[in-house]
Order: sequence, then C-alpha cells, then structure tokens
Amino acid sequence: MTTYLSDLASLVHGQLHGNGEIPITDASTIRDAELGHITFLNDEKYSQDLATSSASAVLAPPNIELNNLPGDLPIITVENVSKSFATIVEHFRPQRHASVNGISAAARVSASAKIGKHVTIYPNAIIGDDVEIGEQSIIHPGACIMAGTRIGANVEIFPNVVIYENTIIGDRCTIHANAVLGAYGFGYDTREGRHIRSAQLGYVVLEADVEIGACTVIDRGTFGATSIGEGTKIDNLVQIAHNVRLGKHNIICAQVGIAGSCSSGQYVVMAGQVGIKDHVHLGNQVKLGAKTGVRHDVPDNVKMFGIPGTPEREQMVRHAAVGKLPEMRKQFKKLQKQVADLEAKLNFREDAA
Amino acid sequence: MTTYLSDLASLVHGQLHGNGEIPITDASTIRDAELGHITFLNDEKYSQDLATSSASAVLAPPNIELNNLPGDLPIITVENVSKSFATIVEHFRPQRHASVNGISAAARVSASAKIGKHVTIYPNAIIGDDVEIGEQSIIHPGACIMAGTRIGANVEIFPNVVIYENTIIGDRCTIHANAVLGAYGFGYDTREGRHIRSAQLGYVVLEADVEIGACTVIDRGTFGATSIGEGTKIDNLVQIAHNVRLGKHNIICAQVGIAGSCSSGQYVVMAGQVGIKDHVHLGNQVKLGAKTGVRHDVPDNVKMFGIPGTPEREQMVRHAAVGKLPEMRKQFKKLQKQVADLEAKLNFREDAA
Amino acid sequence: MTTYLSDLASLVHGQLHGNGEIPITDASTIRDAELGHITFLNDEKYSQDLATSSASAVLAPPNIELNNLPGDLPIITVENVSKSFATIVEHFRPQRHASVNGISAAARVSASAKIGKHVTIYPNAIIGDDVEIGEQSIIHPGACIMAGTRIGANVEIFPNVVIYENTIIGDRCTIHANAVLGAYGFGYDTREGRHIRSAQLGYVVLEADVEIGACTVIDRGTFGATSIGEGTKIDNLVQIAHNVRLGKHNIICAQVGIAGSCSSGQYVVMAGQVGIKDHVHLGNQVKLGAKTGVRHDVPDNVKMFGIPGTPEREQMVRHAAVGKLPEMRKQFKKLQKQVADLEAKLNFREDAA
Repeated sequence: MTTYLSDLASLVHGQLHGNGEIPITDASTIRDAELGHITFLNDEKYSQDLATSSASAVLAPPNIELNNLPGDLPIITVENVSKSFATIVEHFRPQRHASVNGISAAARVSASAKIGKHVTIYPNAIIGDDVEIGEQSIIHPGACIMAGTRIGANVEIFPNVVIYENTIIGDRCTIHANAVLGAYGFGYDTREGRHIRSAQLGYVVLEADVEIGACTVIDRGTFGATSIGEGTKIDNLVQIAHNVRLGKHNIICAQVGIAGSCSSGQYVVMAGQVGIKDHVHLGNQVKLGAKTGVRHDVPDNVKMFGIPGTPEREQMVRHAAVGKLPEMRKQFKKLQKQVADLEAKLNFREDAA
Repeated sequence: MTTYLSDLASLVHGQLHGNGEIPITDASTIRDAELGHITFLNDEKYSQDLATSSASAVLAPPNIELNNLPGDLPIITVENVSKSFATIVEHFRPQRHASVNGISAAARVSASAKIGKHVTIYPNAIIGDDVEIGEQSIIHPGACIMAGTRIGANVEIFPNVVIYENTIIGDRCTIHANAVLGAYGFGYDTREGRHIRSAQLGYVVLEADVEIGACTVIDRGTFGATSIGEGTKIDNLVQIAHNVRLGKHNIICAQVGIAGSCSSGQYVVMAGQVGIKDHVHLGNQVKLGAKTGVRHDVPDNVKMFGIPGTPEREQMVRHAAVGKLPEMRKQFKKLQKQVADLEAKLNFREDAA
Repeated sequence: MTTYLSDLASLVHGQLHGNGEIPITDASTIRDAELGHITFLNDEKYSQDLATSSASAVLAPPNIELNNLPGDLPIITVENVSKSFATIVEHFRPQRHASVNGISAAARVSASAKIGKHVTIYPNAIIGDDVEIGEQSIIHPGACIMAGTRIGANVEIFPNVVIYENTIIGDRCTIHANAVLGAYGFGYDTREGRHIRSAQLGYVVLEADVEIGACTVIDRGTFGATSIGEGTKIDNLVQIAHNVRLGKHNIICAQVGIAGSCSSGQYVVMAGQVGIKDHVHLGNQVKLGAKTGVRHDVPDNVKMFGIPGTPEREQMVRHAAVGKLPEMRKQFKKLQKQVADLEAKLNFREDAA
C-alpha cells in the first residue's frame, strides 16, 4: 500500500514542512527505517541517528530544533508524536480484531456460569461452575477459569491463563498468556519430618485496571485474599505469594519476587528482579532499584538499592568506598610501615638518650 | 448464612468464653475482620491488632494471656488454632469439588494409556500413548501428558501443565498450573561457530509427595534422570536444570535457579531467588538465604548468605565492616595526616638536632 | 531386551577391549550405572568414580589412560564418546515419534491459514487467521498461534506455547512448552495519576535456529520488532522486554532478565539470573557471570561480574579486599592506638623539653 506524505499529514492533523508528494510505504523507528518509510523523533538527542537513517520523512514535535536535520527531509509536526505515530503505524499495519463473535461452540462453558453481553469466548476456553463474566470481556483460547470466579467488564484474558477457584477480577483488567492466579500458597508445617501443606482456603482479588504479565503467578491467601490494588501494573514472570496486599498504582517489573504477607502503599515502583522478605511493608512512593533485596519495612518516599536493601545515598557512598578499597589497602600497608619506622626511630632515640 | 458463636464452638470442640448467642457471618484474619466475623489469634504479639479490629469473636489457644483483649470479646479456645480456624472458614465458604466424574468425553486419551480407578480427567486434557495414571488421580483441563509418562495414585495435575515424554511421578504429588516437566536441558557443543544441542535422552523423576509450583520448569536429564526426592516442595517459577538430583524433604522457594548436575542432601532449604552453579553439592540441612549465589559445595548444616555465598557469621561480619567503611575512610585520612605531621615533627627535630 | 557388548561395539563402530560376550541391559551415567549397564567416561578425572561404579562396561576415547580402570572392565573405544553413547541409549530406550500424522481433526485451523507439506498439528492446537506454517513443522497440543504469524520450516512448537499476532519465526526454531512470544511490552505513561499503556503495535522476530526455553517470555516491540539473532539459544524462564535486539549465537541462561531496547553483538554469553538495564548495549563476545547486574554498555570481549557489573579482574580484587576488611579493621584500630601513643610520647617530650 502506498500513501503520499500529505495524506499522512492529514491523517494526524499535522503541519507538513517539505515535499508532500513523496510516496510512503511503512512506518518504522529510526533504527529500523528504510527508504520510503516515515519515522519519528521525540527528542533532539536522537537527531544524529536521523542524519544517518534511510527514512524518507519524519514526524516531530513543533518546538524541535530543526538545524541538525538533513536539509531536505520532509517533516510533519504534531503535538503528540507517540500517539500520531501509532496512528500512522496502524494505517500501514492495521491491528487484527477478534475473528470470533460471542461464545464459540468449541468453548466449554458451565451451565451455571453467568456470561454478560458482548462477551467473546474463544474455542477451547474452559469456564467453570458459577463463574461470572462481565460485559465486553474477552476470554482467549485455552484459558481456564475455575469455579466461582467473578470477572468484571472489559477484561481481556489471553490464551492458556489459569485462574483458580473464587478469584475476583475487576473491570478493565488485562491478564497475559500463561499467567496463573490463585495457585496454592507455599506454606508448610513440618511434623515428624514431613512438610504438611497449610490451609489453602483463600483467593486472589485484582481491583480495577490491573495488568498482569505473561507467566506471572499470584498465590491465593491462606484464609482470605491476596490482593492487587487498582491501577497496579505487573510485568512478566513475577511471583506474588500468599496474603500479599499491593496498593494502588504500583509498577512491578519483571521477575520481582514478593514473599508472603507483604504489603505496599500507593505508587510504589519495583525494578526488575527485586526480592522482598515476608511480612515487609513498603510505604507510599517507595522505589526499589533492580535486584534490591528488602528485609525490613521501608518508610514513605525512600529509594532503596543493594542486597540487603539500603537507602540510595548510603548505598552509593558504600559502593564508592568499596571501589576504592583495594587502593586504600595499599595505602594502609604503607601507613603501617611509616608508623613502624616512626616507632623504631623514636625508640632508637630513647635508647640513645 | 448465619451461625451462632456457640455452634462454632461445638463445630471445633472448643471452650466458649463469653456470649455464645452472637450471630457470626464469616471468618477472616484480623486484618480483614468486619463486624459479625470471627477471627483468630495465635500469638499474643498480635493482641493489639485485635483491640482495634471489628471482629465480633476470636479463636485462640487456651494458654493465651487474655488481659490485653477487649473486655467483652467472646473467645473460643482450642488446642490447634490454625486447624480449627480452617474448619470454620470451610463452614462459611465450602470448598468446591470436581464437577467432573471419571474421564470427560472431551479429554483426548490415547487408546494405549492405562487409567486407574476413580481417576478424573477434565475436558481438553491430553493423555499420550502408553501413559499410566494411578488411582484417584486428577488431571485438570488443558494438561498435556506426553507419551510414556507414568503417574502414581492420588496425584493432582492442574490446568495447562505440560509433562514431556517418559516422566515418572510418584504418589500424592501435586503439580500446579503451567509447570513444565521434562523440557530439553540447556546444553550445547559449539562447532564451527554454531551451538549444537546435546543429547536429550533422559527424563524427570518426582518421588512421592513432591509438590511443584506454578510455572516451575524441570528439565530432563541428558541420558538419565533429573530427580526430586520424596517430600520435597518446590515453589513457583523455579528453574531446575538437567541432571539435578534433589534430596528428600527440601524446601525450594520461588524463583530459585539450580544449574545442571547439582545435588542436595535432605532437608535443604533455599530461600527466594537463590542461584546455584552447575555441579555443586549441598549437604544435609544446608540453608541458603534469599538471593544467595552458591559457587562451591556446601557441607552439612551450614547456613549461607550473599553473592558469592559465604557462611552466615562471616557474611554478617563482612557486611557490618562494609557498612562502617565510609566512616573508616574518613578516619583513615585523618590518621594519614597525623602520621605525616608526626614525621614532619620528627624530621624537623632531626634537622634541628 | 538383552544385547551383547560386542553388538554394541559394532553399533557404534568402536574398538572392543575385553570380553564381548557380556550381556548388557541398559546404558547409564556413572552415577546411575547398575550391574549389566554400560556407562561412559569422557575425562580421566572421573575414572575414580568408575572404580566404585557397578557398571559392567565402559565407552571411552582411544587416548584415555587405562591404568586407573578396574582391571577386567571391558572397554569400547570410540572417537566421539557422547554421540556414540547417545546411540547406545537410543538402542535401549528408543525415542518416541509423533503419533499424529498431518493435521488432527481436533486441531482448530483457520480457513485462511497456509499450512506447508508434512506439517503435524496436534489436537487442541489453535491456528489463527492468515497464519503461515512451513514444511515439516510440528505444532503440539494446546499451542495457540495467533493471527498473522509466519512460521518457517522444520520448526517445533511444544504444548501450550502462546504466540501473539504477527510473530515471525525462522526455520529450525524450537520453542518449549508454555513459552510466550509477543505479549505486550511493559511501558506506561503516567497521566493524572494513572498508568496508561504505551502503543503495542510491534511484533517478535526469531531468526533461524533459535531455541526458546519453557516459560520464557519475549515481549513485542512498541512499533517494530523485538528480535533474536540467528542461532541464539535461550533457556527457561527468561524475560526479554520490548524492542530488545539480540545478536547471533548468543547463549542466555535461565532466569535472565533483559530490559527494554537493549542490544547485543555476536556470541554473547549470559549466565543464570543476570539482569540488564534498559537501553544497554553488549559488545561481541561479552560474558556475564551469574547474577551480574549490568547498568552501562559493555565493550567487546569484556567479562563482567557482580552487582553493579564490574570487569572480572577488578571485581575479584574488590571482592578479595572486602573479604580481608574485617581483619583490616582490627589492624586499623591497632594502628590508631600506635599513632596516638607516638603522639603522646612526642608531646610528652616536647612538654618535657
């Protein structure tokens, strides 16, 4: 499909600078752009990359410094570059929409399930007894929703997700492929040398607008809920143990592990591979750097790094000191020698005196 | 459903202290308890939480110090609080039982498979050629059991688990959703710049009473077994590589990674996100703190922490020393100055002498 | 099945030393070998293990030092021990081959999909609209291939793998059970306190001969590709974020996490549980030790360790210095005392003078 640059300017209601009659065949990032592609520039610091790119046109904000751009490169300026570029990408590569309408005959839906209006259920999905699914929700192939689970409206559950019994999922949640909600908590009592599984009577609650990454696991509570607050986003391969309570609008990056009964306030951010000991509470706006290992409660607004987790400033000082330690060891040995010499000299004089 | 407190006391064979005619509507932890709920207290240190809870009654052990409880809060005392509380929770929220009996017509079971008595196989489960499944076992929807696998009695395999060829699973094992047993080991020979996969002729063995968490992966052995000892419990998102041999009654927490050909004794405990280098042996009762990185064999009964893994006492001393390092640097500079001053003074005198 | 040792020598075209009329019943590693089994020895350092093994025969390279072997143990010598031993294992335990031929009637294949010759599609696999699958490829049960995906020839996709829309998979790739390709990238803009998902218009590209482990997740690019170079092998439970570009012939071990927009050269090796910050570039032949945390670009041929990642030599020096720090603290206190004594002595003399 060929489109003229002036057509794209109209599509995104942008201002065209330069030749609008160039044919454009695709939209790519600067890294990927080939001849005939339009690309985008959000930040002047990448304008050098643009100079060496094969792109035939660029989308940019109105206030960008144009001096560094290749002289004759046509520009479309728009206020929201990311959004407009997405519109152009979708023009060239339209998103696919559900080919299934309603409930596939090849899905297995319990007679006691209550399914809302305009719900899509794909082949091979399994909907257990007494499950409720709200309007407009989409259940992809192979997803297994076990008995008693209640799913809100406009929820999307991707293929092969497994949701155990009695889970509660709020409106507009998204759950990616192969995630698992409600597996048994990892709690055992050891009696006569054998590990006996603790009670597994609880469930998982996702409030509204929660997103769960692929292959992420959230265990059920022992007696009550493991819960994720409204608007919290969780990346792939994250472990959330039994009885955890995450607050609203947290950001939890990939491969984080949160042990049993932890809790968090609002707007907490955990970078990748963080680990948190059981029963720890993280205050509002706490930020944890990648791979941080947290063993104690963290007050509001504190930024932590390292293993064990240490406030940012302290950790930087400590890390710098360790970096200089080998040099300090050398100087220390020199100093020991100096002091020994001084002592010898002084003793010699005393002996001489 | 409303139940009187005296009914609950009878249900758990407990001793009622206070007004038994209160209606109770649910059972919750102290954190979640609302008016009309019964909660439980296992440890006096949480009695303050109870004072501010809305709970209408509490389950507690007989020897608990009652002074700190709100004066008129009715109590049921029992020997095993957790077990009795579980009984009460189940009274209010009965667990769901399999709605399928026997082998679903929508499961795909090979004609050569041998299925024991009272086995439940849900729709969309796949049972390959020559698979054997022992009595009372349950195979959930979408689980895929590949050819030649042998499963014992009273095993439960949750939805979408994948079990590769020739796996051996002992009695009473539990395998949570989306776990994978028997994938290829990650071994390659590099020839002429290309990585060539090593032999993948082995299999996985779980002895009796093993539990495997959701999205955990255990790779097959190269020529023989990767094996997990009796009674060992493995949490979610754990990686166990080819040819590993775990002993009996180990506890392996979430996101642990164990490289190829490692082995362990009995009652080993690994906290979350531990990593173990290939060919390492861990002795009996070894304990590894969260995020420990182990590079060498560990003798019996040793507790290790840190990266690289270091015996507990040594690691604590080391960590404390690093914490004091920035202060020590300051003092060190001061000391250098003092010594320089002393030298100058002494040299001055010598010059003067 | 019983086979004589001389038969095995013929099977692998090996040189028999000792009694060929021994019946052999199975092939095992030294660790597992029982009476009647043949085992193998690739390295003289394991010959002691062989001395205490119950094995009845051994496969070994021609140049091995035979002095340490039990005197009468029959040997078959061959050039390529691993390959020949694999042949013997397969003789005793033949590998299982697909029991399905062609496309199962219980698979769900879109009418618009283009399926090559000799493709195997198992029951309950889902093939979406406009999907293309090359010759000889195998799609296992429960795998879900979403619309627009293009799969090359001789690809094997194991059970319950999920491949999102428009993924491109090269020839001879292998994707293990429950892996996920093309889930949404973890990118959000925060507006008025809510996290708004960024564009998700890209896709995933695997070049030829890539292998992906079980429960590994690769997210789609924002506008374009997340791509994995030819011949790169990725282990289980790995996280690869949006817009990442891995080079050719990388080796990525289990539980590694690579954040958004990272890139790598050729023959990069990452050991288990490595974490890489977003936008980092790793040069050719870079090697990262287990658990390394990388925050900055790494030049060609550098080996990194530690958190934060530090060149190998520097990290070893640093680690050794930390190990000696507690002792250094003691000596430092002693030195402070010595200097104070010296000062006192000198001041005393001055006062006395």
